[in-house]
Amino acid sequence: MSVTVSATLAVNEALAEKERQGLPVLPLGFGEAGLPVHPEMRDALAMGGDRNEYGPVAGTRELRTAAAGYWERRGLPTDPDLVVSGPGSKPLLYGLLLSIGGDVAVAAPSWVSYAAQARLAGNQPLLIPTAPAQGGVPQPDLLATSVNAARAEGRDVRSVIVTLPDNPTGTVASPGTMRRLAEVARELDLVIISDEIYRDLVHDPATPLTSPAEFAPERTVVSTGLSKSLALGGWRIGVARLPDSDVGHQLRDSLLGVVSEIWSSPAAPIQQAATYAFDEPSELVDHIARSRRLHGIVSGAVTDRFVAAGAMVVPPQAAFYLYPDFESWRGRLATDRGVTTGPELTALLLEEYGMGVLPAAEFGEGEEALRMRVATSLLYGETEAQRYAALAADDPTALPWIRAHLDRLSEVLTDITTGVGRASLLSRARLN
Amino acid sequence: MSVTVSATLAVNEALAEKERQGLPVLPLGFGEAGLPVHPEMRDALAMGGDRNEYGPVAGTRELRTAAAGYWERRGLPTDPDLVVSGPGSKPLLYGLLLSIGGDVAVAAPSWVSYAAQARLAGNQPLLIPTAPAQGGVPQPDLLATSVNAARAEGRDVRSVIVTLPDNPTGTVASPGTMRRLAEVARELDLVIISDEIYRDLVHDPATPLTSPAEFAPERTVVSTGLSKSLALGGWRIGVARLPDSDVGHQLRDSLLGVVSEIWSSPAAPIQQAATYAFDEPSELVDHIARSRRLHGIVSGAVTDRFVAAGAMVVPPQAAFYLYPDFESWRGRLATDRGVTTGPELTALLLEEYGMGVLPAAEFGEGEEALRMRVATSLLYGETEAQRYAALAADDPTALPWIRAHLDRLSEVLTDITTGVGRASLLSRARLN
Repeated sequence: MSVTVSATLAVNEALAEKERQGLPVLPLGFGEAGLPVHPEMRDALAMGGDRNEYGPVAGTRELRTAAAGYWERRGLPTDPDLVVSGPGSKPLLYGLLLSIGGDVAVAAPSWVSYAAQARLAGNQPLLIPTAPAQGGVPQPDLLATSVNAARAEGRDVRSVIVTLPDNPTGTVASPGTMRRLAEVARELDLVIISDEIYRDLVHDPATPLTSPAEFAPERTVVSTGLSKSLALGGWRIGVARLPDSDVGHQLRDSLLGVVSEIWSSPAAPIQQAATYAFDEPSELVDHIARSRRLHGIVSGAVTDRFVAAGAMVVPPQAAFYLYPDFESWRGRLATDRGVTTGPELTALLLEEYGMGVLPAAEFGEGEEALRMRVATSLLYGETEAQRYAALAADDPTALPWIRAHLDRLSEVLTDITTGVGRASLLSRARLN
Repeated sequence: MSVTVSATLAVNEALAEKERQGLPVLPLGFGEAGLPVHPEMRDALAMGGDRNEYGPVAGTRELRTAAAGYWERRGLPTDPDLVVSGPGSKPLLYGLLLSIGGDVAVAAPSWVSYAAQARLAGNQPLLIPTAPAQGGVPQPDLLATSVNAARAEGRDVRSVIVTLPDNPTGTVASPGTMRRLAEVARELDLVIISDEIYRDLVHDPATPLTSPAEFAPERTVVSTGLSKSLALGGWRIGVARLPDSDVGHQLRDSLLGVVSEIWSSPAAPIQQAATYAFDEPSELVDHIARSRRLHGIVSGAVTDRFVAAGAMVVPPQAAFYLYPDFESWRGRLATDRGVTTGPELTALLLEEYGMGVLPAAEFGEGEEALRMRVATSLLYGETEAQRYAALAADDPTALPWIRAHLDRLSEVLTDITTGVGRASLLSRARLN
């Protein structure tokens, strides 16, 4: 099986290497939440330090009950016996794809790992374009057409993945889109996997958001984790909510069989801390609210810089991503820099400017697309003190280290669009 | 993909259910080390509570350097860049099988998950019998014959797994066997995966043990973890050492590609604690020495009870397993209890006596084999106080709770061999 290391992590490692060499970097490539561990989570982990039992494959009853409560408070009544935890929602998604089997429809663009995981599981992704501002959700009518066509060719398509809110675009598909998606999935008899890991990071709480599990409760699996809302990516804990139906019960059994042979159970001390988190004590709820506000302000400011430089950007509504389109620069980039594809553009940004972003091609779009995913959450600072200051600031973009990143971004974008390589020379001069 | 939950975990859950119902249980099914978390490890985990970064896919440099030192002290010089960590050695083994691809030769008997993982990865295990007291290692000459035959039929066999020391038999294959295995693997161009998770639990340090990485350094992957030596199964951390050769470098890249899409990286706080452990401070070395002694004494005592009841048992040399053979009871079991297969025998033991063990069939042997794996590590007690007392005792088998388990075992074995079901009745009477 030949697979290269996940592009997100590869860019992250390339930037770390540049930083070790003392080169300037603009870390916009990696979807790490960039905030400190809340002290209460640290304490909760320490309290779990005597837990060394493997425990149930699905996770402890306490964790599953807490996760059920979390979903219940979001309008999704949940049986703890239909909750399965894993070492991240990413491995759970892999386990689900292995368990469901068959090809899987995914949005283009969509998170880098869905298609890669489908291939690892021995199946093929079926890429379906999204509608503008409906990121993460295959256009329902195109989904129907594509699945029917694929089936006519003998392909066995069994599921569709949606991301709500979306990575890479930071948008939130409307309840109308979700309802239509659910109808189509039912008509086609597809399992819906709804990756809702950014659900608690919608910037404006008035933004309407409805899980497909409300429209197609019998066939929708919902996954989430603590990596984004609590910035606990490195703690590796996720949960999946299986539907309370024949399909769901069978899928649970199959999923437990698969994951018992791959990872046994998630780390017990982490499970104990996650139980505390999914119970949503007010300290953590407040912390997430502050994080959400920070993500909104900074991703908004970054969006403004891209727009000022002439890029097209659908304003992000959630998480810490935007997905600017550089189509308007195509002629200039080809003439001045010999750049004609998205991967060439992002390679240029990385090599020449230390700006780490991911090309649209990594998210299932064509190489010709001059779009890229920009992740803004590593701009908050490098130290815990800076990150706490960013969380506390009325205007985080006025903090010197965030301001400096934003200005460097404008400098790079101006440089690229005027094509003279000044910002690149400038940054090298600074080092001497 | 249809897989049932790992048999080990299923028996564990069945016994837990019986215990909840107040029925007597003899927990001999589950390979959990049954000892407390060392306080220094608890502290090390708490110290890692602020680590929330995903970090490198392979694990932190600190962890990989510590693991390299661990192997270096065992005669295996190791480049930290050729170490890959994972959330347990089990997921690493799965990642290796996916990365190597092709069918895999495994010993019969061998650990339940190798064959299951090979199937999950879309390949087939090739089961090769072991020689007496050479548990975990396919008989080298049979390996050559079987692989050549399989290849002649068009099968693509690429690797062989060995377990040193062995689960399920608790034996340690001799250096001579390992040398011959390495020669055969080289002739057949097979990657050797050497699962050495029980390496530090050889009861008598004078027992000779040589990793195949010494005989075939260019093609041997070694894996280990903290689940057994430090009883940290529930912490889910393992490491793999890739060979320093073209094969090894390619396999490392492929493995990192695969695991970056499945689990990203192991939990960061756990990695930090594991770094402390692989540095082998004297407190932990002493603790492991005490654990090893306890495992040796109790598995020896359990072996004695089986031998006294007429079973054949190769005396275990490592870990907390033995693999008794009930062939001498075959006639009696068929006549008195209608039992003719291993799974029927273990089901009877579970249902009628609450004695949880796993039949040989779970380890790749035929159903007709009246052998079973007995794990002795859950006899040490149910509370932390009892487990510490077991570690400290001159004669742990004299502790009342361990003695009671041993006596109950003799009672069950006598009852089964005399065929009257007295122990079963007795245990029920006790409940009334």
